[in-house]
Amino acid sequence: MSEGPTAFGHRFADRSLLEQALTHRSAAGRHNERLEFLGDALLNMIVAEALFLRWPKADEGAMTRARAQLVREATLAGLARSMDLGAKLALGPGEMKSGGHRRDSILADALEAVIAAIYLDAGFDACRAVVLGWFEPLVAELVVGKVEKDAKTRLQEWLQGRGKPLPVYTLVEARGDEHDKVFFVRCDLADPVDTASGQGSSRRAAEQCAAAELLARLDVPRAPRRGPG
Amino acid sequence: MSEGPTAFGHRFADRSLLEQALTHRSAAGRHNERLEFLGDALLNMIVAEALFLRWPKADEGAMTRARAQLVREATLAGLARSMDLGAKLALGPGEMKSGGHRRDSILADALEAVIAAIYLDAGFDACRAVVLGWFEPLVAELVVGKVEKDAKTRLQEWLQGRGKPLPVYTLVEARGDEHDKVFFVRCDLADPVDTASGQGSSRRAAEQCAAAELLARLDVPRAPRRGPG
Repeated sequence: MSEGPTAFGHRFADRSLLEQALTHRSAAGRHNERLEFLGDALLNMIVAEALFLRWPKADEGAMTRARAQLVREATLAGLARSMDLGAKLALGPGEMKSGGHRRDSILADALEAVIAAIYLDAGFDACRAVVLGWFEPLVAELVVGKVEKDAKTRLQEWLQGRGKPLPVYTLVEARGDEHDKVFFVRCDLADPVDTASGQGSSRRAAEQCAAAELLARLDVPRAPRRGPG
Repeated sequence: MSEGPTAFGHRFADRSLLEQALTHRSAAGRHNERLEFLGDALLNMIVAEALFLRWPKADEGAMTRARAQLVREATLAGLARSMDLGAKLALGPGEMKSGGHRRDSILADALEAVIAAIYLDAGFDACRAVVLGWFEPLVAELVVGKVEKDAKTRLQEWLQGRGKPLPVYTLVEARGDEHDKVFFVRCDLADPVDTASGQGSSRRAAEQCAAAELLARLDVPRAPRRGPG
């Protein structure tokens, strides 16, 4: 018996796990949403540990920000593309036609599902080794304490530091069906009076977008003010 | 050499890890915030896997809601109390005086830190076994598909199901210092016109509180409309 091909840095004993991980809910058969749930938790844990061990003096806030940057959808989609995951995806005809195999959210979700598939196939240590292999170059690029705070945090801190009221975020609209929603958000400042709109694939993403717009207008510098590590 | 006492269901080879896990940031010495970061990720992963294995047909949404209920601060604080964790905590004099060893947030954070300490002391399998021991009775009590959706989700679904505008949440005020903040939130409905206030130790908790108030006024039934498993 041949050992079979490796996929994503792992040789699957049970290929059906890999198959399920690469099946979008739009396709026939068992899809990857349950695996994505488990894979997301595994990914968060493995990256948390990597940062914990690599940055022995970083505080919780610095590690939280670094992890958010490493596991965000755009980063995962980039990794998935570097592994040509899109070409291996099973999608329904509608998603095929609309280019679903190139969409960030579908790629990121499938990569998380692959993580769970490896875990179920070979256990925690094997899964961690594979995931660390993917992320190590990205972790190595991060400089402790230099991970930028997100736009909402920076906007809030800038306002608080000046004794000004907090920004008010309002969900204006959410369009599209459950799996392809676009959120439209407004952010209002009372002092200085200003308002900006943002949109994104989650309410949070839309809020970040609006906050970033206001930060740019307020000319808030991007460098973090203190390094934790 | 004696094997030493077990604490929290685990016999620590390196007692300094346990000591750090039980040291609040207000006390002298190495405190538990970094461990809490890692422990939170471990807890989320271990509970995710437990739900994934126990509920083979539950969808991602049902598992996400069940996990949120299991790992929320009040649940963790309850577990911590059942282990008499508060009495073992090292706190600074200010926190001692103000009853910090009874506070939900401090107890929950310390319990998460203990999870990380066990992981670092003895590895993933040992950590998982201990954590599952704590949570199994709670997991067993949950009925698949019967985990209630949170108030914000139910309010949103109720409004969407009737073609009405989404609720608008506004942060009115955040009082107190970083580690003991209280958030005040307002939730406005356009149709029917109504408004409610909520407060909580996080913005999200305050929003849930306001949404729950509106749900009660709208007389929305509490039973979930569909079971996933």
